[in-house]
Amino acid sequence: MANESAKVPLLAGLRDPSTPINQVVPQRRRFGHSKSLPLTEYIPPEFEDHSQLAGSKSLRDNLHPNLKRVLIFLVLYLAAGTICFYLVRDHIKGLKTNGILDSVYFCIVTMTTVGYGDLVPDSTPSKLLACVFVFSGMALICLALSSAADYLVEKQEFLLVRALHINQKVGELDILKEIETNRVRYKCFMVLSALVVLIVAGTAFLATVEKLDLIDAFYCVCSTITTLGYGDKSFSTAAGRIFAIFWILTSTICLGQLFFCIAEVNTEIRQRALVKLVLAKKVTNVDLEAADIDDDGVVGAAEFIIHRLKEMGKICQEDITAIMEQFEDLDVDQSGTLSPSDILLAQSSYTGN
Amino acid sequence: MANESAKVPLLAGLRDPSTPINQVVPQRRRFGHSKSLPLTEYIPPEFEDHSQLAGSKSLRDNLHPNLKRVLIFLVLYLAAGTICFYLVRDHIKGLKTNGILDSVYFCIVTMTTVGYGDLVPDSTPSKLLACVFVFSGMALICLALSSAADYLVEKQEFLLVRALHINQKVGELDILKEIETNRVRYKCFMVLSALVVLIVAGTAFLATVEKLDLIDAFYCVCSTITTLGYGDKSFSTAAGRIFAIFWILTSTICLGQLFFCIAEVNTEIRQRALVKLVLAKKVTNVDLEAADIDDDGVVGAAEFIIHRLKEMGKICQEDITAIMEQFEDLDVDQSGTLSPSDILLAQSSYTGN
Repeated sequence: MANESAKVPLLAGLRDPSTPINQVVPQRRRFGHSKSLPLTEYIPPEFEDHSQLAGSKSLRDNLHPNLKRVLIFLVLYLAAGTICFYLVRDHIKGLKTNGILDSVYFCIVTMTTVGYGDLVPDSTPSKLLACVFVFSGMALICLALSSAADYLVEKQEFLLVRALHINQKVGELDILKEIETNRVRYKCFMVLSALVVLIVAGTAFLATVEKLDLIDAFYCVCSTITTLGYGDKSFSTAAGRIFAIFWILTSTICLGQLFFCIAEVNTEIRQRALVKLVLAKKVTNVDLEAADIDDDGVVGAAEFIIHRLKEMGKICQEDITAIMEQFEDLDVDQSGTLSPSDILLAQSSYTGN
Repeated sequence: MANESAKVPLLAGLRDPSTPINQVVPQRRRFGHSKSLPLTEYIPPEFEDHSQLAGSKSLRDNLHPNLKRVLIFLVLYLAAGTICFYLVRDHIKGLKTNGILDSVYFCIVTMTTVGYGDLVPDSTPSKLLACVFVFSGMALICLALSSAADYLVEKQEFLLVRALHINQKVGELDILKEIETNRVRYKCFMVLSALVVLIVAGTAFLATVEKLDLIDAFYCVCSTITTLGYGDKSFSTAAGRIFAIFWILTSTICLGQLFFCIAEVNTEIRQRALVKLVLAKKVTNVDLEAADIDDDGVVGAAEFIIHRLKEMGKICQEDITAIMEQFEDLDVDQSGTLSPSDILLAQSSYTGN
């Protein structure tokens, strides 16, 4: 970036918002409405656009620092739950092993809403405590599930933003598209595989350590991962409850994620079908009329894209209106198009403020 | 619509795909690149655009006939569950009232994953049956929740499509925007209110009919709506179980919907924050370069909108590429813009195929 000014003497002035207005305004005329001179000629590849990309990324990161935060919440929740239930351990009846272990186990069985009933609160304070912990635990599990989903949505956006800025070739975009297409399905299979491993591990553990027969072990596994938790079969030994603490949490979240993934695949399939349907629809003069944003009687590529995106339901007039207002503010010379001179004038007024 | 051809003799030919190509091609010249003649002059208000709107709607309806389908599934599921569990009623142990009633009750307690454990399967076939019914029931509940969410997303799209086609005034759009803004929050409060009513009704019922004391009744309500279902308190009378059948299903789905709504509000808030951040970002020459789709060195309103929408993560290059391909196919005269003559030529070739 050191040789920027050598390479692009004209743009160097235009891009620097601290440049005094009287130095740069005369240059404006040169750029005027130079329709025949594409901007590419003035902008070296270095400008394209790692700093801006990083900017967009950090914007989004600020909005979603989720997964780490959820893990911190989870640890805090389990710590608080263990302490509370340990303090009221004499108000909890049922099959007990070790004080602290039972508290953590009870906490996990409650937050995941498995609720076997092998340990149940047996006094007003412990019952109300269980009510508080089941609601907050449920919210936390939902947060964990939805933040994972958010993370995926954001990741998709990142991939796309990266695709937009780093390469302009259709070939590479097609590759990225392909990766995107398979990613959700791939994730679906990953989660499903993890779940199968957890089911097998749970069944094997219950059969060997808890001495259940194979059908009962499998039945208890199904009853647990679905959070059904009839409670006729549960983890009754200390070793079983240590295993249960990790296994119940991961397997219930895993099943939740599987449902999320299936929903995601489903949404994707329908979205694509809608895009196909819209693209297959004949373009009529009515469409041209609706698409003609600048009212010049013809529809440019960008106008056509916006119209079709609207039909696909991907964008709405609300989105467009706000951006149009900004466009009108930026179009200082009222030409109906933005050129470097408009940017320069806008920057001068930013600096002036 | 009967006087269409009288009002718009020129367009009448252009819009009719069955018109032979040799009759209409000469007209092409008249429309050519008539930048000074906005299309509005040729298109009467009748064309705007109820048939097309209905078309878009039915496209989406075909993709999402969900809520009704979910209800049918629910009835079928409950019928099958009741029959199955009635047939194995001797393999289910616990506190029983009436054969059919207990089967429906067991079915509901299982599908919602409440799983009190007041009735539990006690043989291999009944245990496996419970496993099958808990998974399918869970999937059905998820479908019910996500199809409601889909329905809302679609409804939003409908509102927007309607807004796009029926009115072009910013004033009315602002009103719709306002409705949209409040809709999700409003729905949140509605669901919350319904949940409070269900909690109060459930507590009152358990206290009066099931003779639980008030704390136990509230504790049982919390344990049920969260699907925790420890099972130390549950519905043990025939009257209680009749109430439970309706109350458990509605209250668990209601709590699920509340979590959904909160997530929706949250997503909306963050989406708006992202839009604000992107709009607040200074526009640089690098942006102009990236936004300039037709490479003419200046950025029109539509190009600017597309660039900002990309930055907001609302659309991606993948979406644009497919539409661009269609644009190039439609732009028969290679002018870089679509005019009625292009549409005419495209229609002729449709007819030709």
